[in-house]
Amino acid sequence: SGLVLVKNPHLDLMEEDVLYHLDLGTKTHNLPAMFGDIKFVCVGGSPNRMRAFAQFMRRELGLAAAGEDVADICAGSDRYAMYRAGPVLSISHGMGIPSISIMLHELIKLLHHAKCRDVTIIRIGTSGGLGIEAGSVVITDTAVDSSFQPRFEQVVLDDVVVRSTELDKDLAEELLACSRDIPDFPTLIGHTMCTYDFYEGQGRLDGALCSFSSEKKLEYLRRAYEAGVRNIEMESTAFAALCGLCGLKGESCCFHLL
Amino acid sequence: SGLVLVKNPHLDLMEEDVLYHLDLGTKTHNLPAMFGDIKFVCVGGSPNRMRAFAQFMRRELGLAAAGEDVADICAGSDRYAMYRAGPVLSISHGMGIPSISIMLHELIKLLHHAKCRDVTIIRIGTSGGLGIEAGSVVITDTAVDSSFQPRFEQVVLDDVVVRSTELDKDLAEELLACSRDIPDFPTLIGHTMCTYDFYEGQGRLDGALCSFSSEKKLEYLRRAYEAGVRNIEMESTAFAALCGLCGLKGESCCFHLL
Repeated sequence: SGLVLVKNPHLDLMEEDVLYHLDLGTKTHNLPAMFGDIKFVCVGGSPNRMRAFAQFMRRELGLAAAGEDVADICAGSDRYAMYRAGPVLSISHGMGIPSISIMLHELIKLLHHAKCRDVTIIRIGTSGGLGIEAGSVVITDTAVDSSFQPRFEQVVLDDVVVRSTELDKDLAEELLACSRDIPDFPTLIGHTMCTYDFYEGQGRLDGALCSFSSEKKLEYLRRAYEAGVRNIEMESTAFAALCGLCGLKGESCCFHLL
Repeated sequence: SGLVLVKNPHLDLMEEDVLYHLDLGTKTHNLPAMFGDIKFVCVGGSPNRMRAFAQFMRRELGLAAAGEDVADICAGSDRYAMYRAGPVLSISHGMGIPSISIMLHELIKLLHHAKCRDVTIIRIGTSGGLGIEAGSVVITDTAVDSSFQPRFEQVVLDDVVVRSTELDKDLAEELLACSRDIPDFPTLIGHTMCTYDFYEGQGRLDGALCSFSSEKKLEYLRRAYEAGVRNIEMESTAFAALCGLCGLKGESCCFHLL
């Protein structure tokens, strides 16, 4: 049917669903009227960048004059920012798996309540590249954990549930085809490694703590490259797992910062 | 000596230390002049609340007229917000362990570069209470993980390092003594459970996914209560581990929201 799936039998029994961190709810807002025609959701860490992206999309779609501002739909909450450009939603998710997970749970319920159909979600973030040119864009085929495995370990109460982190292969190819029209950004498809920590977890030598040598770091990153990893960030495994389970066609493409 | 410790031999070899997510650095800013007299750091998830706290502290310390605004020291970055009120820094850390960890690594290096001494750091966040009155304040004696163990598992490259999550007991008692002067907020000392996930990890029945029954949830929360847990949040184990390792006297006291 193309509808977004929620997999929670308790939701139907609730009189009201409050999407706390988005400052939206089923009794306070007419979600089908506000969001029913959404077809694309783009997410990224930084609120300022997601506002800039919405402004860019509005100009591209001929919906606004240059310089015209867009309103933050979640202005009543400072946890996330959300902007709209026609059928495109642009939302910030902060940094790390716990932060993007809270946003995705509430976004998925939002799309469900709004009865949206055939929604594509794309994470457009930044990442560190591995053996690739600075300024490259990596389209993720599979998100892997710090052991290079395509899995996301979700703690449910005190159990650990292992979830798949595959993304939509057709969408990845489609995005790669689009990239051929934009010669300025070298674009490739590869694995994306998702870590829980930016400093010690990604082998950075400039944190407040660092217990490993630069040789050990290089050996680890070499093994990651050999396993197919082309970039490193902090949200992709949870993003892939949640989107996959809820029937959202998802893809992640990250810009490799210098 | 009361100095803040960094445990990273690579830092001394670096010509410049850029604190990326705070938009500060050793070459671009005179960190000892800007921060050398800081004695207290208060951290919490929400940027708006941390601004309000800095405004409150400035009024309490007689440093500002009511309504006067405070400037965001990290205005060039939208990852975190930082405000100053005399010897007190007020910083937001976003939601979840990865987000607070990035901020703490850069904050600890900031305090180190600024040659601060005898700094006390307090997390003043919100949390869900367990078997306690709404509106209570829980002062954490020990942060525990979702198995109720006083440990933080840090992934370093692809190894897992287990760290202690004890907080400063004297500071906890001191804060409890202060609370006796404020009769409006019931205050207690207890364990704080830190989870990686707000919905499935905390036994919430209102996420996009929920695979457990309300009975299983209650049984889990009952076991948590029996293990001494009085509130649940998403940052305390990483906060306790990092502050402990770097010689920062740290405490966490959370307000239990309704």
